[in-house]
Amino acid sequence: MLSTNGAAAPLDVPRGLAGVVVTETELGDVRGREGFYHYRQYSAVELAESRGFEDVWHLMFHGRLPDAAEREAFLAGTAALRRLPDEVRAALPAVARTCAPSGPLAGLRTALSLLGASAGFRPVYDLGPDERRADALAACSAVPTLLTALHRLGRGLEPVEPREDLQYAANYLYMLTGSEPDPDRARAVERYLVSTVDHGFNASTFTARVIASTGADVAACLVGAIGALSGPLHGGAPSRALDTLDAIGTPDRIDSWIRQRVLAGERIMGFGHPVYRTEDPRSRMLRAVAEGFGGPLVEFAVDVEARVEAILAELKPGRELHTNVEFYAGVVMELCGLPREMFTPTFCAARVVGWSANILEQARDSKIIRPAARYVGPQPPQPLPKAS
Amino acid sequence: MLSTNGAAAPLDVPRGLAGVVVTETELGDVRGREGFYHYRQYSAVELAESRGFEDVWHLMFHGRLPDAAEREAFLAGTAALRRLPDEVRAALPAVARTCAPSGPLAGLRTALSLLGASAGFRPVYDLGPDERRADALAACSAVPTLLTALHRLGRGLEPVEPREDLQYAANYLYMLTGSEPDPDRARAVERYLVSTVDHGFNASTFTARVIASTGADVAACLVGAIGALSGPLHGGAPSRALDTLDAIGTPDRIDSWIRQRVLAGERIMGFGHPVYRTEDPRSRMLRAVAEGFGGPLVEFAVDVEARVEAILAELKPGRELHTNVEFYAGVVMELCGLPREMFTPTFCAARVVGWSANILEQARDSKIIRPAARYVGPQPPQPLPKAS
Repeated sequence: MLSTNGAAAPLDVPRGLAGVVVTETELGDVRGREGFYHYRQYSAVELAESRGFEDVWHLMFHGRLPDAAEREAFLAGTAALRRLPDEVRAALPAVARTCAPSGPLAGLRTALSLLGASAGFRPVYDLGPDERRADALAACSAVPTLLTALHRLGRGLEPVEPREDLQYAANYLYMLTGSEPDPDRARAVERYLVSTVDHGFNASTFTARVIASTGADVAACLVGAIGALSGPLHGGAPSRALDTLDAIGTPDRIDSWIRQRVLAGERIMGFGHPVYRTEDPRSRMLRAVAEGFGGPLVEFAVDVEARVEAILAELKPGRELHTNVEFYAGVVMELCGLPREMFTPTFCAARVVGWSANILEQARDSKIIRPAARYVGPQPPQPLPKAS
Repeated sequence: MLSTNGAAAPLDVPRGLAGVVVTETELGDVRGREGFYHYRQYSAVELAESRGFEDVWHLMFHGRLPDAAEREAFLAGTAALRRLPDEVRAALPAVARTCAPSGPLAGLRTALSLLGASAGFRPVYDLGPDERRADALAACSAVPTLLTALHRLGRGLEPVEPREDLQYAANYLYMLTGSEPDPDRARAVERYLVSTVDHGFNASTFTARVIASTGADVAACLVGAIGALSGPLHGGAPSRALDTLDAIGTPDRIDSWIRQRVLAGERIMGFGHPVYRTEDPRSRMLRAVAEGFGGPLVEFAVDVEARVEAILAELKPGRELHTNVEFYAGVVMELCGLPREMFTPTFCAARVVGWSANILEQARDSKIIRPAARYVGPQPPQPLPKAS
């Protein structure tokens, strides 16, 4: 019911709905105590280590990994959707300029709202499951094009047209820089993207599903999810972890910098996660990717990680605190030449597939998500004062 | 916790969170059994009957009705925020053209996303309560400007610049048509707007609060709420009730048309509400507004209402079914010269104030809204098949 005064008796639940099961899903889950998360029935880390982004996208959208023919069709189909309609492309310079003060997520939110309302997408009253999936494919395929075009326009550069012969991750890097990336870097970014497609229920995924539960179109849901992701409490800003490395500066400063923060009770960016009681499996996988490249940044990061864990064990014994996905994601993206302001947008370029899969799953349920609030103000009706 | 496998034990709740109290609010509530709803401690209908839109806006934002000096300052302050920044105004023709296939809510979603990212709004990391309220005031003040500009551009007309000497409702009608509205029509629309500012917890209000709970900026929250409102299951499309009147056509056809629908078990648009067990108080108020104008449409609507209730009492005894807010809202808007495609956008021009008040209230709570999902797919980890 709409209200605590409606027909149903109100039910009290933990603040913020923590632990309240709002829906069933076949898309995946996080096992915080085991340090394990999965997409459908497969380990997400194994997928990141051995499969391409489009394979996992297919898995999330269609419920199974593609065979060779399906992969070929899926690659070709999504690659063909990367190019923006002329009218959207023409509007991007104004979007980039106007949204510049609020950053790349606000730009993406606006550009995707525009794209999703354009002629290639179905009006909301015509959306069946097939049309909705087609719209989701089109939206996801275009997100890297929108992100990279807005980024380049913001720097006075022309957008780079997408290439259909490159896979998702490689094409993303290509559109960002204008040069074909070397395969190791493209693959490293692809691993990051695969590992970031989905991660249990979080506020942006939930937002996408609440909007989807009204029957709204895919763009309406994605735009809401981007908005939720942009909130500081949503968490996840890989650039902040790198900022920590910068702030520490040199290996000889690690101990004093960390001790000072820990003793002051400050949070150290890149460490700690609300669900994992173990090492974050994404962090472990991305550390291996980083170590594959090697170099001073990676050595420094590994050093900082080890020192933080040792100092915490000394100062706060019994408190398990490990690097989270932000820490080595930032290192990997830096190594692959991504500019720091594109770290969170790059996260978005992967998560849009997870949000979309959640939208498609939610749209099959005809039940709107509509909880209640409890009114706690002065008891109405109070007599209305005369207008002065 | 993020997941059913996190630390907290999962809690089972009704589908769609129906009746689940997710937050406390001082903004208002709906008492479905009494046919009563309120904004803070005052009857919403009494407010609509005796106060202007800005008074109620002030009540929702500041917690009290304004005194004379506060009203003057609030009117002047919000009127000054109606004019769009040049860069946003310059982008609207492209937004109107590109979003035309998806309708006015998609256009508003995009334009408000753009406006809320522009230089006049604060970046998300700088938002304290005062900045957030200032941004909400700016967004609400500009919504009528955006809506009317997009509507006119879609018809090949130049947007009409806002006037600061008119109050919210009158200025809205003025920008829509280019002529100053007669005071009776402006006041009728104002009553509708006041009656529509808020109405308990619903999917768009909840969406706005979920996004706000991440700390996101006001525009991010409003854009998500507009998306949720655009979903067909959200309900509330005053134009559909008028479409019903059109479909019936003439008084002599009422009985056969209604009987056919009722016997076929079809829904009759403009009738029935999930919460009210009585007459919808908004409907009663808006019927009186319509009857103040009189004329054949009003007589026909009153006739249809009486016949539907009589036929339902005969065919489905014991089932209370009354007109909902859509029915006479459509009639009033038609009488006031609003084009039918602007009925739901006009609703938005009022509800944006309610959403914003909810956003400001939610933002004072530091707890993110993040429920859980239950994984119900095949048990992981399954061995990953070799890529074919």
